[in-house]
Amino acid sequence: MIHITYRIETPGDVEALARKIASDQSTGTFVAVPGETEELKRRAAARVVAIRHLPPADRASLPDEAGDATRFNRADAEIAYPLEAVGTDLSALMTIAIGGVYAIKGMTGIRVVDMKLPPEFAAAHPGPQFGVAGSRRLTGVEGRPIIGTIVKPALGLLPDETAALVGDLLSSGVDFIKDDEKLMSPAYSPLSARIAAIMPKIRDHEQKTGKKVMYAFGISHTDPDEMMRNHDLVVAAGGNAAVVNINSIGMGGVAFLRKRSNLVLHAHRNGWDILTRHGGLGMEFSVWQQFWRLLGVDQFQINGIRVKYWEPDDSFVKSFKAVSTPLFSREDCPLPVVCSGQWGGQAPETFVRTGRTTDLLYLCGGGVVSHPGGAGAGVRAVRQAWEAAVAGIPLSDYAKEHPELAQSIEKFADGKGA
Amino acid sequence: MIHITYRIETPGDVEALARKIASDQSTGTFVAVPGETEELKRRAAARVVAIRHLPPADRASLPDEAGDATRFNRADAEIAYPLEAVGTDLSALMTIAIGGVYAIKGMTGIRVVDMKLPPEFAAAHPGPQFGVAGSRRLTGVEGRPIIGTIVKPALGLLPDETAALVGDLLSSGVDFIKDDEKLMSPAYSPLSARIAAIMPKIRDHEQKTGKKVMYAFGISHTDPDEMMRNHDLVVAAGGNAAVVNINSIGMGGVAFLRKRSNLVLHAHRNGWDILTRHGGLGMEFSVWQQFWRLLGVDQFQINGIRVKYWEPDDSFVKSFKAVSTPLFSREDCPLPVVCSGQWGGQAPETFVRTGRTTDLLYLCGGGVVSHPGGAGAGVRAVRQAWEAAVAGIPLSDYAKEHPELAQSIEKFADGKGA
Repeated sequence: MIHITYRIETPGDVEALARKIASDQSTGTFVAVPGETEELKRRAAARVVAIRHLPPADRASLPDEAGDATRFNRADAEIAYPLEAVGTDLSALMTIAIGGVYAIKGMTGIRVVDMKLPPEFAAAHPGPQFGVAGSRRLTGVEGRPIIGTIVKPALGLLPDETAALVGDLLSSGVDFIKDDEKLMSPAYSPLSARIAAIMPKIRDHEQKTGKKVMYAFGISHTDPDEMMRNHDLVVAAGGNAAVVNINSIGMGGVAFLRKRSNLVLHAHRNGWDILTRHGGLGMEFSVWQQFWRLLGVDQFQINGIRVKYWEPDDSFVKSFKAVSTPLFSREDCPLPVVCSGQWGGQAPETFVRTGRTTDLLYLCGGGVVSHPGGAGAGVRAVRQAWEAAVAGIPLSDYAKEHPELAQSIEKFADGKGA
Repeated sequence: MIHITYRIETPGDVEALARKIASDQSTGTFVAVPGETEELKRRAAARVVAIRHLPPADRASLPDEAGDATRFNRADAEIAYPLEAVGTDLSALMTIAIGGVYAIKGMTGIRVVDMKLPPEFAAAHPGPQFGVAGSRRLTGVEGRPIIGTIVKPALGLLPDETAALVGDLLSSGVDFIKDDEKLMSPAYSPLSARIAAIMPKIRDHEQKTGKKVMYAFGISHTDPDEMMRNHDLVVAAGGNAAVVNINSIGMGGVAFLRKRSNLVLHAHRNGWDILTRHGGLGMEFSVWQQFWRLLGVDQFQINGIRVKYWEPDDSFVKSFKAVSTPLFSREDCPLPVVCSGQWGGQAPETFVRTGRTTDLLYLCGGGVVSHPGGAGAGVRAVRQAWEAAVAGIPLSDYAKEHPELAQSIEKFADGKGA
């Protein structure tokens, strides 16, 4: 069975609403029709298996549908769907157990808060090709977070301007560099030209230093064939990673790419926010991420502590735990990418709150390139912050012996941010 | 330029928020970084071109982010993105102009309410292959709505049970039949077995009557290769249509399918509701549907008058007008599919409110199969209702001479519904 838990909210009866969801999303229909037998109900019917009541709310998550009610009953309703009725295809799961539910009348809020899939899903989907271990192997980084940065400004640089910035970033000692997720293949910076300008620098750097920096190119395209051509350009030039806007290309695009991919797939989740930002609507990240992990993303952007976006720290911590918890095995865990406004100052809290692990990519944009001592000092400062975090030494103490960290505290601390 | 209008809501200053959106989504970054020149800003920067103030709200669309504010300023902010910075790829457009915006801090609501694309998008995308004209040609229906029905129950019937029901529906005179969108290829009803059971009946009916009923099979699959195999099975059996869960397979899946498709693509939008149901969040259907039309869906489910789902009639009417208004030419209009709880009783209001057109597929589930006289009487009743609607004759008058319509009024009218 597939178990989905919906946090439902209604001026009416939560049990009745839960039964309606189970019926509407499987055998049920709006009027009795010929042919509905007990046998087919056993074959395909979803069933409410638990109702956990929650305190009622005094405001509706969907206020336009509140009528004149002033009290909204809430419960977590767990519904079990027979695997035989859904199958293991993720688009079927999405349509039957999630997509269709959002249209149901008579509720003022619904949020999918949990999803438990049977092991048949593990067998039916590839999962990550590289994940944590592959990302470490390809970057050669062990025992500490992989440190990454982003080429900024987001849009507008010509390929040779981008490559010049990449040259500076390479000499900083950073492990990973990526295109901004908004940069794919616009007319002023076609992907092919960007690859041609950047990859020789990556290869030269490897020749000189022995260190292969992972560069993730923005290969997303709505047309999967075009996206594969983009993928192949990166591979042909010796690249090993790609930024993929998973929500924009959709599950079909990711499935197609993963099946053929030789690249580390760095997932950017733009668009997800509107599915989760209102706490009474949409779905939890812990549910949503399961789809993309089964499809096979290798690295998953999940924000961080004190980000520049709307997401609260607690939500980030839950996301980190979600992607770091096996669905079926450790191999299905992607590498968490901690990002947005990061500069090292968040390292101690990140380390403590996410289970004292360094299995993560710590992605700093301005936190590296806007360091007063330049990008090299920026990378050293971030490494120092993580050394201090792992050793349990306060950053201010560690900074006494580590001038780059001291400079970054001076520049970014106390709410100034990166 | 690409023009996007955002309905923004904030306890702060709407102009500042609009400028932040334009900056964040193009050249801007969180701290000044080297390399940001005036030239690149001209090349790629988005600009706020209009702010239309709206009355403030006294409640926040995102209440968890309201702090202690009690007044929320609102405006429609129109932002122009240079085509050169975005290109014509729809996943780039989605990420840059829509997906990324939902993450921005400092707002208590955002809804994308308008999108105007330049003609380069028409040239870059296929649009519908069949659309209105092709749907009419293949069904042979002119001068009235195409009348359709759905095999119910949604899930659980074995292929031969489904085929037996289809046999009854064929003899009813209906023009179009579809799988429930939740039915794709579960173990108890593999698509291949369903096609094998159903298509001989469709072909026999055509032999006997000269009428080819369009049957839309549920071919959706997350893996585009699997979906194409499903497509090919339908084509090989002489079928001509497919139900596609566009939101679940995503833009990549639809793009892949359209490029290779010989079938009428009947788009089901399950999952869309959560993007639009809260009036202060997400996006208008008029924006969302542009993506799928450019990608090339032929028929678009958009609910109807007095549906069983949450959507109000006014919203449906706006959706109907949206899909019936050319983006660039009449050929990019899909056939509107009016559905959910329809039985003919809504025909007069549908006709009057949508611009007095019969260019639509009128899809009745229970409204056909639960007619007291059987499915044949159900189809005749729906046709009669549309004859009356077009002639401007009240249904109750027309029913005096048309017993099937009289029976359906008796069964379904006065809020009893279909």
